[in-house]
Amino acid sequence: MNILKEGGVTAAKGFKAAGTEAGIKYKNRKDMAMIYSEAPCKAAGTFTTNVVKAAPVLWDKEIVEHSDFAQAVVVNAGIANAGTGKEGYAYCEKTAKKAAALLKIPENAVLLGSTGVIGMQLPIEKIEAGVEKLAGGLQAATEAGTQAAEAIMTTDTVSKQAAVTFEVGGKTVTVGGMCKGSGMIHPNMCTMLSFVTTDAAISKELLEEAVKEDVKDTYNMISVDGDTSTNDTLLVLANGLAGNEEIVEKGEDYRKFCEALHYVNETLAKKMAGDGEGATALFEVKVIHAKTKEEAKILSKSVVCSSLSKAAVFGHDANWGRFLCALGYAGVDFDPEKVELFFESRSGRIQIYKDGTSTDYSEEEASKILSDPEVTFLADMKMGEASACAWGCDLSYDYVKINADYRS
Amino acid sequence: MNILKEGGVTAAKGFKAAGTEAGIKYKNRKDMAMIYSEAPCKAAGTFTTNVVKAAPVLWDKEIVEHSDFAQAVVVNAGIANAGTGKEGYAYCEKTAKKAAALLKIPENAVLLGSTGVIGMQLPIEKIEAGVEKLAGGLQAATEAGTQAAEAIMTTDTVSKQAAVTFEVGGKTVTVGGMCKGSGMIHPNMCTMLSFVTTDAAISKELLEEAVKEDVKDTYNMISVDGDTSTNDTLLVLANGLAGNEEIVEKGEDYRKFCEALHYVNETLAKKMAGDGEGATALFEVKVIHAKTKEEAKILSKSVVCSSLSKAAVFGHDANWGRFLCALGYAGVDFDPEKVELFFESRSGRIQIYKDGTSTDYSEEEASKILSDPEVTFLADMKMGEASACAWGCDLSYDYVKINADYRS
Repeated sequence: MNILKEGGVTAAKGFKAAGTEAGIKYKNRKDMAMIYSEAPCKAAGTFTTNVVKAAPVLWDKEIVEHSDFAQAVVVNAGIANAGTGKEGYAYCEKTAKKAAALLKIPENAVLLGSTGVIGMQLPIEKIEAGVEKLAGGLQAATEAGTQAAEAIMTTDTVSKQAAVTFEVGGKTVTVGGMCKGSGMIHPNMCTMLSFVTTDAAISKELLEEAVKEDVKDTYNMISVDGDTSTNDTLLVLANGLAGNEEIVEKGEDYRKFCEALHYVNETLAKKMAGDGEGATALFEVKVIHAKTKEEAKILSKSVVCSSLSKAAVFGHDANWGRFLCALGYAGVDFDPEKVELFFESRSGRIQIYKDGTSTDYSEEEASKILSDPEVTFLADMKMGEASACAWGCDLSYDYVKINADYRS
Repeated sequence: MNILKEGGVTAAKGFKAAGTEAGIKYKNRKDMAMIYSEAPCKAAGTFTTNVVKAAPVLWDKEIVEHSDFAQAVVVNAGIANAGTGKEGYAYCEKTAKKAAALLKIPENAVLLGSTGVIGMQLPIEKIEAGVEKLAGGLQAATEAGTQAAEAIMTTDTVSKQAAVTFEVGGKTVTVGGMCKGSGMIHPNMCTMLSFVTTDAAISKELLEEAVKEDVKDTYNMISVDGDTSTNDTLLVLANGLAGNEEIVEKGEDYRKFCEALHYVNETLAKKMAGDGEGATALFEVKVIHAKTKEEAKILSKSVVCSSLSKAAVFGHDANWGRFLCALGYAGVDFDPEKVELFFESRSGRIQIYKDGTSTDYSEEEASKILSDPEVTFLADMKMGEASACAWGCDLSYDYVKINADYRS
C-alpha cells in the first residue's frame, strides 16, 4: 500500500473535480464543489441515523439504493438544506437537473451534499449558477481535488484529503477522498460529508459491504461534541477504470481494497476529529484488553465524549479521575482495582493509575505529555483480548465562542 | 402543601446540623458538614451507577441496606475520596468511628458523603478534627442548616436548600433538604450529593419506594455536562418525630408525602442544573404529546445534553436547527413535518418551527426570550399524551475555564 501525500478525490483514474465561489452565504471564499467521473460508478453510501434528515440525504439514499449508477456529486457549504420541508427537496431536484443537463448524464446519477446552518432555504439561482461554473471548470489535476476539498469547509480550519494506491493483478488501483466536519460531529452508523473515489473494479455488493463495515471503525469512532448531524453522508464511488479484474469475492484483492479504503476513511475521520471546532489537540482514546470489541468501543467513546476529560486535555491537566469516571459510567462492567491508565504522546508515556489508586507519577511530566497536539489516553482493562480506538478533540473556549454565535 | 422559603435539613423536627472549616483543601471557607437526628431514622438512598464508586458510596450503600437505623451524616468537600483504593475505605471507617463515639450512636448509623477532586487521599487528621468541631456545634436553627449547605459546595456558586410542610391527621409533617452539584452532573438512576430529612413517620419500604420513584423525575432529569460522577448520593432520613400515624400503605397520606418529597427533590435538582459550572441560565426542555413517558424523557434529555443547543442558549441565539437535530438523534422515531417547536421564558413565548420548516418569527424577539436567566425549549411531538421535563444549563466560556484548571 502506497500512501499519496497530496491526493484526494481526483487521485483515482477518470475522476475530475472543481471548486468555486457561488456566494451562498460566505464572502470571498469557495462554497461549491463538484466531483465527476468519466465512467459510470458503482455507488455505496452511509447516511445520518438522525430522524431529521436533510433533503440531500433523502435524495442520495434514493440514488444509492435505486439508480443503476452514479456519475457526479454536487456539494454546497453555508446552508445545510435541513429542516427545509418540501421546498428544500425541490431544490435538490433542481440542482441535480441542472448538473445532469450540463454533464449529459441522467438526473438520477447526480448525488448531492449540503452543509452549514439548518433551517435556511438555499438561494437556488446562485446554486444553479454555481453548478454551471463547476461543470465548466472540471479538471483531473490534484489541485482541482484540493479546490473541491476547500469549497466544502464550514468551520473547518484546514481542508481534509487522503489517497492511497495498491496493486491488483499488475494493475494500480487508487482510493482517494475528501471530507469536511468540525462541529455537530458524532456520526452514528453514518458519517459527516465525506466523498471517496476509487478506480477499482468491484461489485456493488462488495463495495457496499466494505463501506458498511469500515465506517464502524472509522467515522463512527469520532466525536467532537456528541451531536449527530442531520446531514451526515459518506459516498464512495468506484468507476472501475484501474482495469483490474472485477473484485467479486472476498479474497486477497478484496482484503487489499478494504485495507486501502480503511486507510483513507480512518485518515479522513482523524482529520475531522483533530480539526474539531475550537480544538487545540487531537484526543485519542485507546482501550486495550477489554472483554469484547463492542465493550472496548463503548468504553473508548465514553471517554472521548466526556466534556470534563476534554477540558482536562485543553488544560494539559492529568486529572485522571475524570477519565476513569468516564470509563465507569460507560455502561460496561469492570474492576476499578485492576484497570491501568496511561497518557502518551510524542513527548513520552506515563502510567498514572494502578491498583485502584494514583501512581506516584510526576505532574510536570504528565502535563508535558498532555501539551502535545496529539494526545492519547490508554486504558488497559485487563479483562480480555479486544481493543478499540476513538478520536475526538479537546474542549476549548473557542468551541463555545464558535457555537455561541455561529449564525452571526 | 406549604413551601418554607428558608428551610433545609434542619426544617424537620429533631434534626440538627453544623458546618465548619476543616482546612481539607480550600482556604478560608467551610468544607465539612454534619446532620444529626435526635431519634434513630429510617434511611433510604440512591447512589451512582458508575462502575467506579467512591469509598463513601460503598460505605453508605452498606448502611442503607443493612443497618437497623441511621442517625447522622458527615460530609466533606474538596476531596471526593474516589479512586483511592483500600486506604480511602479505611478513612471512611475512621471518620464514622470518630463521629459515632462523639455522638454516642453506633458506627453503622453514621452515613458519609465526599465531593471534590478524584484520586487524592483524605487528610484524615483534619477530617477527625473537623468531626469533633461539628459534633460540638450542632444546632436545630435554620442558620445551622444553611451553614451545612454552604460547607458542602465545590464549584457551586450558591448553596441549595428547600423545605416544605404538609398535614397528616392533624400533625404537621416537614420535608427539607440540601444538595450540592455543579459539574460532573448527569445523574443516572441516582443523584448528586443531596440530603433530605423528614420528621414523617413512614415505613422503610414505602420510604424506599417513594425515593426510588421520585429520583426518576427529578435528579435523573438533570444534566450539566453528561458526566455521571463517582460520588452521586441521595440520602433521605425519616425520624418520625412529626407524630403522625406511621404511613404504611399507599393511601392519601403516602400521596401527600410523595408530593412533598417531589417538591423538595425537584427544587434541589433544578437548583443544581441552574448553577451548573459556568452557567448563565437554567435551560429547561419540555417535551409534550410524546407517545410514551419514556420517549418524552429520552427526547428532553437529548436536547438538554446537546453541547450545540447549550451554546446557542449561552449566545441567546434561536438557532432551532440544533434543538431539532438533538431531538432527531435521540433514538426516538417521530415525524419532523408534524413537530412544533417553541422558546419561552418570563419575557414571552415564540413558535419557531412548524410544518417541517421555520415559522416567520422575529429573531429579535426570540433573542430577547433567550436572554432570560431561565429559558424553556418546548417540543410538541403531536403523537400522544406523555410529557417530560429535563433541566440543564447553557455552555459558557466559564465552563471550559473552570474545568481546564479545576485542580490548580
